[in-house]
Amino acid sequence: MLGLLTRAESDRLRVVLVSTRNPLNIGAAARAMSNFGLRQLRVVNPYAPAFREARSAVGASSVLAQAEIFETVANAVADCTLVVGTSAIRTRHLHHSVRGPKDAAQLIRRRLRSSRVALLFGSEKFGLSNDDLSYCHWLLRIPTHEDNLSMNLAQAVAVCLYELIRDTKVWPAAGKLPPASAAEVERLTTILLDALHASGFLDLRRVSDSEQRIRRLVRRLHLPARDAVIWLGIFRQIAWKLGSAERQKA
Amino acid sequence: MLGLLTRAESDRLRVVLVSTRNPLNIGAAARAMSNFGLRQLRVVNPYAPAFREARSAVGASSVLAQAEIFETVANAVADCTLVVGTSAIRTRHLHHSVRGPKDAAQLIRRRLRSSRVALLFGSEKFGLSNDDLSYCHWLLRIPTHEDNLSMNLAQAVAVCLYELIRDTKVWPAAGKLPPASAAEVERLTTILLDALHASGFLDLRRVSDSEQRIRRLVRRLHLPARDAVIWLGIFRQIAWKLGSAERQKA
Repeated sequence: MLGLLTRAESDRLRVVLVSTRNPLNIGAAARAMSNFGLRQLRVVNPYAPAFREARSAVGASSVLAQAEIFETVANAVADCTLVVGTSAIRTRHLHHSVRGPKDAAQLIRRRLRSSRVALLFGSEKFGLSNDDLSYCHWLLRIPTHEDNLSMNLAQAVAVCLYELIRDTKVWPAAGKLPPASAAEVERLTTILLDALHASGFLDLRRVSDSEQRIRRLVRRLHLPARDAVIWLGIFRQIAWKLGSAERQKA
Repeated sequence: MLGLLTRAESDRLRVVLVSTRNPLNIGAAARAMSNFGLRQLRVVNPYAPAFREARSAVGASSVLAQAEIFETVANAVADCTLVVGTSAIRTRHLHHSVRGPKDAAQLIRRRLRSSRVALLFGSEKFGLSNDDLSYCHWLLRIPTHEDNLSMNLAQAVAVCLYELIRDTKVWPAAGKLPPASAAEVERLTTILLDALHASGFLDLRRVSDSEQRIRRLVRRLHLPARDAVIWLGIFRQIAWKLGSAERQKA
């Protein structure tokens, strides 16, 4: 029995492998999970032969056998209230705050007490795409040496999960409101985008990644579930009204 | 530059792989070393074809190229003043004290200030033999789950080395953005209320303190100044569009 995370808490963590190519890495990631008492593996858009091979490997763990497959990051993180991306790169992430493993693990453990957390790992070659990252609240970066910043995928998984179970300190409940799930936040994003299109806001500020910018903007709100419902109602009404104005003009 | 271990200190650590069979593991161990700024790899009695294969792999690191080969553990650790074995097994080590990674890393770092330390990893299948262990001062054990105690070799290397450098890097405070001023938040509240009136949202939910509710809702967002400007732009555009629809109807 590993001290800190209860069974219920560790089952709230989803390790999400996005576009992984190498079956050995999927298998090794699953092994690290079972080493550290974690069970919920999700794979998004895996290279299909790789995933079949990993699953059918001799000694493939029950973690791998029970892994769930998703077509999109949005679906894979939909039931989570905190979505954390991992990245080796130092300079690219102007849009996200980046935390070291220690701080990150603290925040993740705290959240796991009451709700689900997704920890995302990108492909071996490219990491997480900007689109993948737009679903993340913040990023975790393992401090690596400038001579060789990029870790092997399965080793990065092992280090992150180790950090999660490393400390046996008990953290006081933060007494915060239950946070909105990723699905709720995404619903809000969608209706906000509708309203922004209808209002002309996005047309006035033409940039190629405007949807990603809005998605990140909404995630940075860190909405409690209760408030997400209110904002959803607000933007529904606004979008409806803007649409009805359009209909009247037509 | 990873803070606490100086170049001289990190060059005093020898990672010693004993009787490793799988070339991928040797390569991955070398990669983890270079990720964490370590250079001195020693291999004892490697399965020769495996080692040749690992060394000649495309992208094999300089760590691997410079690895030294020894025939015995005794020779591989001869210049070290502290020899630490790694092990997954809980019960076997009657003769050694066993430390967790945290305590172990502290002691190793302290020793590296003045002299050389060897960190030994055994073969994938059998770990370190009793003979190998007899060269060790004490053992390091990563706390793994009883369902699956044994880690992949290269992942164990990564976790041990990560723990060694874990506290060495000072992380910048998690990049909190400067918060919006009360005046900015109030400006946003005002324009949001305009939009809510124009959209009919407030008329549908008649309560005496609706303005206060909206004011609190906006404050709970804890907006950074940068994002407050964006939301202000969004609601200005929405309010303008809703207003112009009203004007067209009139």
